Amino acid sequence: MGILDGMRVVEGSAFVAVPLAGMTLAQMGADVIRFDRLQGGLDAGRWPVTRDGQSLFWAGLNKGKRSIAIDMKHPRGREIITEIITAPGEDAGLFITNLRVRGWMDHETLSARRPDLCMVTLMGDRHGRPAVDYTVNPAIGFPEATGPEGSTEPVAHALPAWDCIAGNMVVSALLAAERKRLRTGQGSAVDLSLKDVAAAMLGHLGIIGEVEVNGVSRPKSGNALYGAYGQDFLCADGERVMVIGLTDRQWRGLLNVTGTTEDMAALETRLGESLRDEGARFRHRHAITEVLRPWFAARRLADFAAHFDEAGVTWSIFRDFARAVAEDPDLSLDNPMFSRIEQPGIGTFKVPGTPFSFSSEPREAPRAAPALGAHTEAILGDVARLPDSEIAALFDQGIVQQAPASEVQLAC
Amino acid sequence: MGILDGMRVVEGSAFVAVPLAGMTLAQMGADVIRFDRLQGGLDAGRWPVTRDGQSLFWAGLNKGKRSIAIDMKHPRGREIITEIITAPGEDAGLFITNLRVRGWMDHETLSARRPDLCMVTLMGDRHGRPAVDYTVNPAIGFPEATGPEGSTEPVAHALPAWDCIAGNMVVSALLAAERKRLRTGQGSAVDLSLKDVAAAMLGHLGIIGEVEVNGVSRPKSGNALYGAYGQDFLCADGERVMVIGLTDRQWRGLLNVTGTTEDMAALETRLGESLRDEGARFRHRHAITEVLRPWFAARRLADFAAHFDEAGVTWSIFRDFARAVAEDPDLSLDNPMFSRIEQPGIGTFKVPGTPFSFSSEPREAPRAAPALGAHTEAILGDVARLPDSEIAALFDQGIVQQAPASEVQLAC
Repeated sequence: MGILDGMRVVEGSAFVAVPLAGMTLAQMGADVIRFDRLQGGLDAGRWPVTRDGQSLFWAGLNKGKRSIAIDMKHPRGREIITEIITAPGEDAGLFITNLRVRGWMDHETLSARRPDLCMVTLMGDRHGRPAVDYTVNPAIGFPEATGPEGSTEPVAHALPAWDCIAGNMVVSALLAAERKRLRTGQGSAVDLSLKDVAAAMLGHLGIIGEVEVNGVSRPKSGNALYGAYGQDFLCADGERVMVIGLTDRQWRGLLNVTGTTEDMAALETRLGESLRDEGARFRHRHAITEVLRPWFAARRLADFAAHFDEAGVTWSIFRDFARAVAEDPDLSLDNPMFSRIEQPGIGTFKVPGTPFSFSSEPREAPRAAPALGAHTEAILGDVARLPDSEIAALFDQGIVQQAPASEVQLAC
Repeated sequence: MGILDGMRVVEGSAFVAVPLAGMTLAQMGADVIRFDRLQGGLDAGRWPVTRDGQSLFWAGLNKGKRSIAIDMKHPRGREIITEIITAPGEDAGLFITNLRVRGWMDHETLSARRPDLCMVTLMGDRHGRPAVDYTVNPAIGFPEATGPEGSTEPVAHALPAWDCIAGNMVVSALLAAERKRLRTGQGSAVDLSLKDVAAAMLGHLGIIGEVEVNGVSRPKSGNALYGAYGQDFLCADGERVMVIGLTDRQWRGLLNVTGTTEDMAALETRLGESLRDEGARFRHRHAITEVLRPWFAARRLADFAAHFDEAGVTWSIFRDFARAVAEDPDLSLDNPMFSRIEQPGIGTFKVPGTPFSFSSEPREAPRAAPALGAHTEAILGDVARLPDSEIAALFDQGIVQQAPASEVQLAC
């Protein structure tokens, strides 16, 4: 069920972006079929893993999909994947991939079988060369703008942000291509690259303009909000909080709750500048921080947290992952996005469904990720439409497997 | 032109996520109408700005849209926005927003005018409370997992990653809702929150499982690739590079090009463990780095760059934004995604179009962002369908403006 109910998408993938795209579609109700080689994809054992070596990463990024395990070195295996990708159905013929396979699995070959195929291919860079989030990010400059002010050490982000962005763009591209097919009957091949996604964002955020028009390469500014006011503060109990004065309303609210309106007016007189101007707040952020610092240093979190919330201050605590998972109500079962479900081979833990709430559909609980090859037999039957006798022969010949006994499987 | 040609989307927004969503749709060919109050939205002067105070941020995130400036405190202004959002057209009735307006601009009121409206609303958190990228990120734990190993200082990311992800999800949600409407005639209200987007990703990436199943809160690991091998190295000429050994092929390739295969075999003997196992590579990353470090320390970038590329090594240089914009071919006009275009009021600089390449559509050059209110008159005519006499009266009464003479306008 879900808003994409009836849509069938085939996914040939590994790692973050395209698996995330397929899972996003699955959590919106599409039937997403991920195919992998018999021993599992390149991400079958990707960290984090449990003490038994079961991949929590694989479990996280493949929720709600169906899985087929097949020997793609065997000609019949390749033929079957081709049949699955190009199988009939008005809402089928949709393929997303980040595998670079020339020949049998490229758009030219596949669209000869199904001319209205919509296929989205994510590459490393625009020439098809390898690139990953960990290389794209330093290439375009973010690590040099991240971390403590004045430091010369580049700091890479811990979130694979470019992958997460690109994965969601794969979803958009597929839906846009299918929209056109629905109106015109025409299929599409859509290409994008992780590097281009990042390069474009550098422009969209104004950073290329900042370099070319202003001649400025944005330096590190620690945990400060860029371009207005926002800063982290240590409290008397060792807690750290982030407070925001981005908009005029947020700024005035922050001064109100901390009782610093007069002190800030005195600062404005000293500076000869109004801090109602967001740029002035950024330029004078250190002076502002000196005014606010004693207020936070003298208080424990509990002294002001409820008051900040009531006053509508835009603020947050800093927590590590464990504390966030334990304490944050938005990461708890109080949030209808989360359910505690059993992931075979791993155990029971909190799992998110889609962040979307569609008025036209009930919110669905997340489904577990499949064991590798868990749906091989079903997919050979209901999608590839092979007769039972051939399916049996494929298993006998070892061309396909159902939940194989390999170290990379998820289920016990 | 573009794959979404004919679609009309109305945007009521500010800052990164929803403007990015609208711009992404505009760069795919949709007619995207952003409405703002007369003095411009909350992001009208968002940094980076030029020396004249023109916002490069606004210019970056509103490319290719049409802009109408209207007094929404005036009842007629509100009525006109309602008419624009609910205007007829099979491919219209699409509205994206991150403004929290109860009453005249909520889904209940708007859908009474156009029952098949598809409306996507991005909120701060799921309760509608304020949250921004700078607060969501510390709340869920990434700053505590970012930065030098062993440090206790949290490091916030410089890229507004959650905004960029959420913005692309707004695109997906709108396209999914419109897909359903095309099949059933039924509209949708879709809600999502920035906090939920981040909370869900924490689960998708396996981090919630890592906490709940393994009892581990992932610590900082500097610029190392998590869970396999990838590390930054300083070269003899002061350049810094990132090299990746995530997959087995990348790992063997890295040892090959650095001639460290035998040294690494000796290390494996010493450790009593195979480094063909990706987890072992992560656990022993410091020992691996000690083997590789002298190789890079003894060489200048030029000594190995071409060889690395030829051998297909997954690697990158670290550059700041200015160097990236100046040197990286993917950020140059050699990349068909970029054009040098004139942004009125700002000047001429490199601007990205969409990272998507659709086989069914020619690649379009990016269009500049509109000056605030640049299309007021046209939109009042061709969308709101007001007679010329009323349009003239609206201008006379100051309810609408065309490129107003305010400090936040973009055009001269």
